[in-house]
Amino acid sequence: MKRVVCFGEIMLRLNPPGYGRFVQAESFAASFAGAESNVAVSLSNYGVDAAFVSKIPAHEIGQMAVNALRRYGVDTSLILRGGSRLGVLYLEKGAGQRASKVIYDRSDSAFALAERGEFDWDRIFSNADWFHFTGITPALGENGAALCREAVQAAKKLGVKVSCDLNYRKKLWSIEEAGRVMGGLMPYVDVCVAGWETAAALFGIAAEGSDAVINVPSKDNCVSIAKKLTERFGFESMAVTMRGNISAVENTWSGMLYTGGAAYFGPEYKIQIVDRIGGGDSFSGGLIYALLENYNPRRAIDFAVAASCLKHSIENDFNLVGLEEVESLLAGDASGKVQR
Amino acid sequence: MKRVVCFGEIMLRLNPPGYGRFVQAESFAASFAGAESNVAVSLSNYGVDAAFVSKIPAHEIGQMAVNALRRYGVDTSLILRGGSRLGVLYLEKGAGQRASKVIYDRSDSAFALAERGEFDWDRIFSNADWFHFTGITPALGENGAALCREAVQAAKKLGVKVSCDLNYRKKLWSIEEAGRVMGGLMPYVDVCVAGWETAAALFGIAAEGSDAVINVPSKDNCVSIAKKLTERFGFESMAVTMRGNISAVENTWSGMLYTGGAAYFGPEYKIQIVDRIGGGDSFSGGLIYALLENYNPRRAIDFAVAASCLKHSIENDFNLVGLEEVESLLAGDASGKVQR
Amino acid sequence: MKRVVCFGEIMLRLNPPGYGRFVQAESFAASFAGAESNVAVSLSNYGVDAAFVSKIPAHEIGQMAVNALRRYGVDTSLILRGGSRLGVLYLEKGAGQRASKVIYDRSDSAFALAERGEFDWDRIFSNADWFHFTGITPALGENGAALCREAVQAAKKLGVKVSCDLNYRKKLWSIEEAGRVMGGLMPYVDVCVAGWETAAALFGIAAEGSDAVINVPSKDNCVSIAKKLTERFGFESMAVTMRGNISAVENTWSGMLYTGGAAYFGPEYKIQIVDRIGGGDSFSGGLIYALLENYNPRRAIDFAVAASCLKHSIENDFNLVGLEEVESLLAGDASGKVQR
Amino acid sequence: MKRVVCFGEIMLRLNPPGYGRFVQAESFAASFAGAESNVAVSLSNYGVDAAFVSKIPAHEIGQMAVNALRRYGVDTSLILRGGSRLGVLYLEKGAGQRASKVIYDRSDSAFALAERGEFDWDRIFSNADWFHFTGITPALGENGAALCREAVQAAKKLGVKVSCDLNYRKKLWSIEEAGRVMGGLMPYVDVCVAGWETAAALFGIAAEGSDAVINVPSKDNCVSIAKKLTERFGFESMAVTMRGNISAVENTWSGMLYTGGAAYFGPEYKIQIVDRIGGGDSFSGGLIYALLENYNPRRAIDFAVAASCLKHSIENDFNLVGLEEVESLLAGDASGKVQR
Amino acid sequence: MKRVVCFGEIMLRLNPPGYGRFVQAESFAASFAGAESNVAVSLSNYGVDAAFVSKIPAHEIGQMAVNALRRYGVDTSLILRGGSRLGVLYLEKGAGQRASKVIYDRSDSAFALAERGEFDWDRIFSNADWFHFTGITPALGENGAALCREAVQAAKKLGVKVSCDLNYRKKLWSIEEAGRVMGGLMPYVDVCVAGWETAAALFGIAAEGSDAVINVPSKDNCVSIAKKLTERFGFESMAVTMRGNISAVENTWSGMLYTGGAAYFGPEYKIQIVDRIGGGDSFSGGLIYALLENYNPRRAIDFAVAASCLKHSIENDFNLVGLEEVESLLAGDASGKVQR
Amino acid sequence: MKRVVCFGEIMLRLNPPGYGRFVQAESFAASFAGAESNVAVSLSNYGVDAAFVSKIPAHEIGQMAVNALRRYGVDTSLILRGGSRLGVLYLEKGAGQRASKVIYDRSDSAFALAERGEFDWDRIFSNADWFHFTGITPALGENGAALCREAVQAAKKLGVKVSCDLNYRKKLWSIEEAGRVMGGLMPYVDVCVAGWETAAALFGIAAEGSDAVINVPSKDNCVSIAKKLTERFGFESMAVTMRGNISAVENTWSGMLYTGGAAYFGPEYKIQIVDRIGGGDSFSGGLIYALLENYNPRRAIDFAVAASCLKHSIENDFNLVGLEEVESLLAGDASGKVQR
Repeated sequence: MKRVVCFGEIMLRLNPPGYGRFVQAESFAASFAGAESNVAVSLSNYGVDAAFVSKIPAHEIGQMAVNALRRYGVDTSLILRGGSRLGVLYLEKGAGQRASKVIYDRSDSAFALAERGEFDWDRIFSNADWFHFTGITPALGENGAALCREAVQAAKKLGVKVSCDLNYRKKLWSIEEAGRVMGGLMPYVDVCVAGWETAAALFGIAAEGSDAVINVPSKDNCVSIAKKLTERFGFESMAVTMRGNISAVENTWSGMLYTGGAAYFGPEYKIQIVDRIGGGDSFSGGLIYALLENYNPRRAIDFAVAASCLKHSIENDFNLVGLEEVESLLAGDASGKVQR
Repeated sequence: MKRVVCFGEIMLRLNPPGYGRFVQAESFAASFAGAESNVAVSLSNYGVDAAFVSKIPAHEIGQMAVNALRRYGVDTSLILRGGSRLGVLYLEKGAGQRASKVIYDRSDSAFALAERGEFDWDRIFSNADWFHFTGITPALGENGAALCREAVQAAKKLGVKVSCDLNYRKKLWSIEEAGRVMGGLMPYVDVCVAGWETAAALFGIAAEGSDAVINVPSKDNCVSIAKKLTERFGFESMAVTMRGNISAVENTWSGMLYTGGAAYFGPEYKIQIVDRIGGGDSFSGGLIYALLENYNPRRAIDFAVAASCLKHSIENDFNLVGLEEVESLLAGDASGKVQR
Repeated sequence: MKRVVCFGEIMLRLNPPGYGRFVQAESFAASFAGAESNVAVSLSNYGVDAAFVSKIPAHEIGQMAVNALRRYGVDTSLILRGGSRLGVLYLEKGAGQRASKVIYDRSDSAFALAERGEFDWDRIFSNADWFHFTGITPALGENGAALCREAVQAAKKLGVKVSCDLNYRKKLWSIEEAGRVMGGLMPYVDVCVAGWETAAALFGIAAEGSDAVINVPSKDNCVSIAKKLTERFGFESMAVTMRGNISAVENTWSGMLYTGGAAYFGPEYKIQIVDRIGGGDSFSGGLIYALLENYNPRRAIDFAVAASCLKHSIENDFNLVGLEEVESLLAGDASGKVQR
Repeated sequence: MKRVVCFGEIMLRLNPPGYGRFVQAESFAASFAGAESNVAVSLSNYGVDAAFVSKIPAHEIGQMAVNALRRYGVDTSLILRGGSRLGVLYLEKGAGQRASKVIYDRSDSAFALAERGEFDWDRIFSNADWFHFTGITPALGENGAALCREAVQAAKKLGVKVSCDLNYRKKLWSIEEAGRVMGGLMPYVDVCVAGWETAAALFGIAAEGSDAVINVPSKDNCVSIAKKLTERFGFESMAVTMRGNISAVENTWSGMLYTGGAAYFGPEYKIQIVDRIGGGDSFSGGLIYALLENYNPRRAIDFAVAASCLKHSIENDFNLVGLEEVESLLAGDASGKVQR
Repeated sequence: MKRVVCFGEIMLRLNPPGYGRFVQAESFAASFAGAESNVAVSLSNYGVDAAFVSKIPAHEIGQMAVNALRRYGVDTSLILRGGSRLGVLYLEKGAGQRASKVIYDRSDSAFALAERGEFDWDRIFSNADWFHFTGITPALGENGAALCREAVQAAKKLGVKVSCDLNYRKKLWSIEEAGRVMGGLMPYVDVCVAGWETAAALFGIAAEGSDAVINVPSKDNCVSIAKKLTERFGFESMAVTMRGNISAVENTWSGMLYTGGAAYFGPEYKIQIVDRIGGGDSFSGGLIYALLENYNPRRAIDFAVAASCLKHSIENDFNLVGLEEVESLLAGDASGKVQR
Repeated sequence: MKRVVCFGEIMLRLNPPGYGRFVQAESFAASFAGAESNVAVSLSNYGVDAAFVSKIPAHEIGQMAVNALRRYGVDTSLILRGGSRLGVLYLEKGAGQRASKVIYDRSDSAFALAERGEFDWDRIFSNADWFHFTGITPALGENGAALCREAVQAAKKLGVKVSCDLNYRKKLWSIEEAGRVMGGLMPYVDVCVAGWETAAALFGIAAEGSDAVINVPSKDNCVSIAKKLTERFGFESMAVTMRGNISAVENTWSGMLYTGGAAYFGPEYKIQIVDRIGGGDSFSGGLIYALLENYNPRRAIDFAVAASCLKHSIENDFNLVGLEEVESLLAGDASGKVQR
């Protein structure tokens, strides 16, 4: 069994039930969220030996996060326990023309305050085949950026493949700062994943030709971005997600994989959204699985797009689908017909 | 008041709230489900004297099932109480491209183990005008098939009209077995109801011309199937439901009634699905009502299609609509405008 | 800060959770509803000093209503406490082709039994800039009509601007009675708001040209109605809401403002409905705000339409959106993209 | 099977979940309540053919009430459907030193406005063995008193045994008025049930000797009251309930049956209260069952006390216990031990 | 109407439903909590003009806190809006021998980071009769202590009476630090409230004679503590709460008021706990009300003890009882009898 | 870290919310239950490497069971996946004098149908220190008894210590059959746990002297039973649980450990029950932990009793307490005081 290590922050996610607004809420659904832990759960659901590495307080709220991951089979034995707070992500689901809202309360979390030297990378990467991180950790501050550098350098040294989802968060840092810091990490990255806009904006590539209304890129645009970045940073592969925002509950969804000098586009789905948070992470999870399994590029991008299409039908951040469900969608069964 | 006897199994239906997946569930909504009891509830809501006949354990879970039927006015006085377990149907609602899932846990239920001779058909059919059963009971095994034979023979003898919904369930038996057993029961049936695919597959009729994408049949196809089966089995009428599976939450819905050598098509609705389980049963319920009331064929199929269109907007298996609501939809009010 | 007084009844609104039917309900969501209090909440959310005037029983159910308003910042200090019952509005949400249902249980409420002389209009209107009432209060009976006359006369005398939403409710009175009584109040009204059908029907104006299927008016029709009524009653402005009923969960939505002899049409939105009750009231709330702020007619109607578009995405009657959310939609962000 | 007719009002009962206060409530549990319908449900649960007679609006809220009764097997076929509103009972459960609160909103309900002549007593009493009513119906006003007179006279004429629970409600009428009206009905009553205080107060009997703290009567006191009333009105039997109010969640509970010149006291239970509403009604239900079955006086009062003891452990008004559960408690199993 | 200003932090309180443990939670009830805001709500419920002063983020989670206070009539117009986070208090309710647990996540909250000079005390105290703060604010750090000094000095200067609940929180600071800082504030305090242990420990007074098992103090002990502190700091009055911890769901509860050189003891209640958080605050609220109304010392302490006894029967921090309910308990109605 | 293997069935546990009766339920809380898995969870919470061995269907309901165990850190890698159904346990919680009810629907579960040879005991016991099973598995039928024999023989051979909770279930087999089968297994058992009644009844030992009312044994009785069985079967230790059934929500609770010829009694607690299911299992869990840690007999029995006392305050079967909580109770903190 292949082993993947995902490294990042996990937060308590609190959202009002249904389409309720914050100011109406008398209770919050409590789940756990984080770009990298989302990927770990996806991989565990596909049968991969997925470990999540982070720093989480020793108190019960921290334990809830650990348990949420164990529930879905993620290896939590490498998590450091300590610090005083778990970050909180307040989420209000949008509907129709009303957008979803995220309020971060993640400053000074146990993970954000973790420092170089706390993680024993040699032990973490023993037996690992793959390492995944995202642009959110460096966005947390100097500590986060330093930890990522430490991690990718160790991974490279130990021959562990490295993937990164650029995941730009404008509430956390500026586009310039992000470009500078992420640019420094890219040379260590084998597989880069990004939304098309992020990829272009972060590294100063002009992107034209997208559909103005729902903001989908042209295929040429995607290829051009991936080509330029691959050349600049020497990626083995670059994948780009292509979301079209029709409304808060309806999107189009697809993705492209650029590898070996060629671009492969996955199917485009029109999706009714149950919960879009974690959609991009489920794409990364699908892609990493496919690449670990040595799928050819076409099958790999198809798998990643189908897996993440299904995520949008599932509440909370984690993509709780199995291999056979992704395969069934790829085989053409998008009809939602009841099996009985 | 006309009296209809429905005969079959009723199960505890357990589904996670909303669009939750099984693996996320910390609670299940508990309701009761069964093709034949669904028909009985439909009929009771239209003012028909509907009795449900089954075998249900004497314990409280069994009592819950009885109470669920009594709540909507179904006569439960003919139900045998005994046996040890009530079958369970676990249901996970699909969304978008993710299909709904059904897990049956119905083996060895009190009803599945009921044997010939346990039901006093003469008493059951006293004052009855109509008898309804479905292909699910014979699918439960030898006992079920024998009970159905016993029942239809008694009904014929006593001059009670017989309807049957073919209702093929591939998780219960093979298409060949189903065709053989159901074929033996058909000569006793006056009114046959079926999805177009089931009707064709069960009795070896080639069916072409359907829309490949959402799997709706051509009208010609439906007529051809009904014509052939009517001729083969001597039905008084045969009704065919026509569902187009666009996604787990969107379908097209219509139906056809073939009677007196002519085919009548009902309206086609595009439906946003709240809960599709029981949709076919609500069609049977509407059709039986219309035929009991001697509606002409056009009005009968219109009523059945409109009634079952409304079912898709209602949670759980039972079709909780009244006559005036079906009539209002037929009169053209599909706008969902608030009346106040 | 501008001060607006809204006058009318507030009721306990009871609805089954989700899309549940009344006959399935084991619990009711409890909120508070009333055309005029809905407007007060809208205005308070935009930062206006909004007072709600009514008569509400002194018991705890009445207190719940008062608290619901205080929660959103509405001034409740002018509310009379007394009488014995708070009106109840039972609401069942429709889905697909199944319409929403309203059952009123509002007869003999504390407000419906309030009499002339109970309200001290001089005190109520001290410092007030605007007075808003709707056609529902006169529909409650002689007392309601008399109170409205008393109120608008006092408002006029004290130089307070008067707005009225015609809000015809056929379950409360006949169209003829409504036309007669409302006609008597219109000369005191500066700004009149109405659905296009109500406006036409109430005052006997022929209205043609609407789209037969979803019942949207032609623009010409709207202008013609507004022009005639403005001339007849001397309104300063007349606003018309334009709803197209596609299904219980999908509508089109727009509106027109006729003022200074010219008609201004707002944007048309296609809306996925979370809760449409209070949609018209949120239009009035947006319009009053815009007029208080001296927006030009184009910006005023745009604001009113966008504000009420957003309401349809929010559970319960109150439109819980702030200025920046309305402005953001007007600025073109209807994509529902998550901000993070 | 014996047949009992219960006559009275049924209301929608709305209570905040758990121990929530009204002013905290965002939802209400919805159930149905009424002294006489509670008795009918008790009897149906014991296997008696129990019919409930009332007048209930034809709308869906009325249908909910009918369905609640049908669910537990009560015959609802004699209920008149009409009028416009169903009475509402708002209930807030107390805890510790905080008392439960009831807010009635029952004026002008369909039942309260029902008039003499609307009920066909000859039909209602055909095949009936027993008629039960309570002091709440006459408390609703002139109509209610007249209907009760009409009913008891018909019952007497037709040889139907009559029971009455005095059930004084001080929010509905004065003690003097109640004494006068109920006094006029007592001569038709065979079996009278009352709380000891009510019995004494209503008919001007001095009652001394009760425990001052928790307000339980002395046994002598109970006997004295029952003896005097039996002599005055010629009851066949009189039963008295004896509640000791320790706190909102803890009571003592017992009862006495006075018949044939002798007094029989049931067991005294110390009860942890889940829901005390309907406790007295469950006593009447148990007593009527025992008398219908010709239990001897000792067994009859034991059964009534044990049945109503169990009621206090059950949410909502209805006493959902079966014969075997009452018998098991009487047989001494009050330990709450799990059976498995 | 008297006006009271309460100053302190308000936090989001998150607790699993019922007796659920943190590690079982899939949702949290969301309410708002803080010693000083709890006092403000108590006072508002008694009809006092109560204002709450704090610093709260401008985002929606902050708005929820403001709305929670407005809902119960607290004046929130003096609250500063700013900063980035609202403190969070995670609460797990204990049962039986399992203690309740509190996890604070309040560091770096908007209030904890507020600085001297941000609050305009002259404006805040205009028209104020009373100022209330607690030992929690100085425990938040240097800023908090400085703000309290600033506030009490301003209050003294403006002739506003000052009360303080010592409220020692060992998770926030050491007993030595607390004694030193609080000692510096006491000279400005007119009315001091404290649990008996806190009062003794904070200022180094030996306290003997308490019941070892449930930890209730002897009356002599309480008097002795109050006498010493009154003499040391020159309080006008000192009140001491006396809680006996029998189990997580059962406590004894009483209190003493020491004023004018004499000690007055309130009634002792045995309480079944629904929610004990906020119990002490409700005592302060009752006491301040009684002193504002110039109750004599006996009536004042009785009122405070009865008011806070009732709090323990109410979910969440706020004491949602009215004057008449406290009076009713004082009048001896602790039986929890239903009023109907 | 010590490793314990627990072997048995795990079932889906379905119970109505709160104190609701089955016939009132519209939903069920879904959790997982089984004597042996409960022990595994207890041990995992104390930091032991606990593995659960069973056979569980491969479908999603089976996966829910696996996930429930993983969530709390239990090693599920040895579980066989197969068979068609997971057993169901319906539970209705009692209150006051109303007993809790259990309805088993566990026949023909995947585990009950598992056969000799399916489990690879050598692999299962590699690295194991302890093996735990209960009398429920042999009660499931011949297969279960054979599997237990196979397991204990393998354990003995491999030097793994064996514990057994006799756990007699009268709904599954007769006392005679149980005595015979369990008697055959006892020689392999090192540590035997049982309720005092079970221990006596199963092996034909007269047990006198218990308190007749709440059914607690005399200490002498317990010692006598343990002494006799220890002598008969050669146990290293025998532990006896001592429950006094006061009511469905109140019990007394203690236990005794007989080892080395001496008896040690733990503390006796009076417990307010939140959920008593799993109470005995949590005693076994505590005892096994204490013995693994080589606690002396006094400390061992104290730990087991305190651990299981706390279980009664926790919803569902699993005992979710940590070491420090048990230690804190043993240290005398039973006051339920909030720590803050």
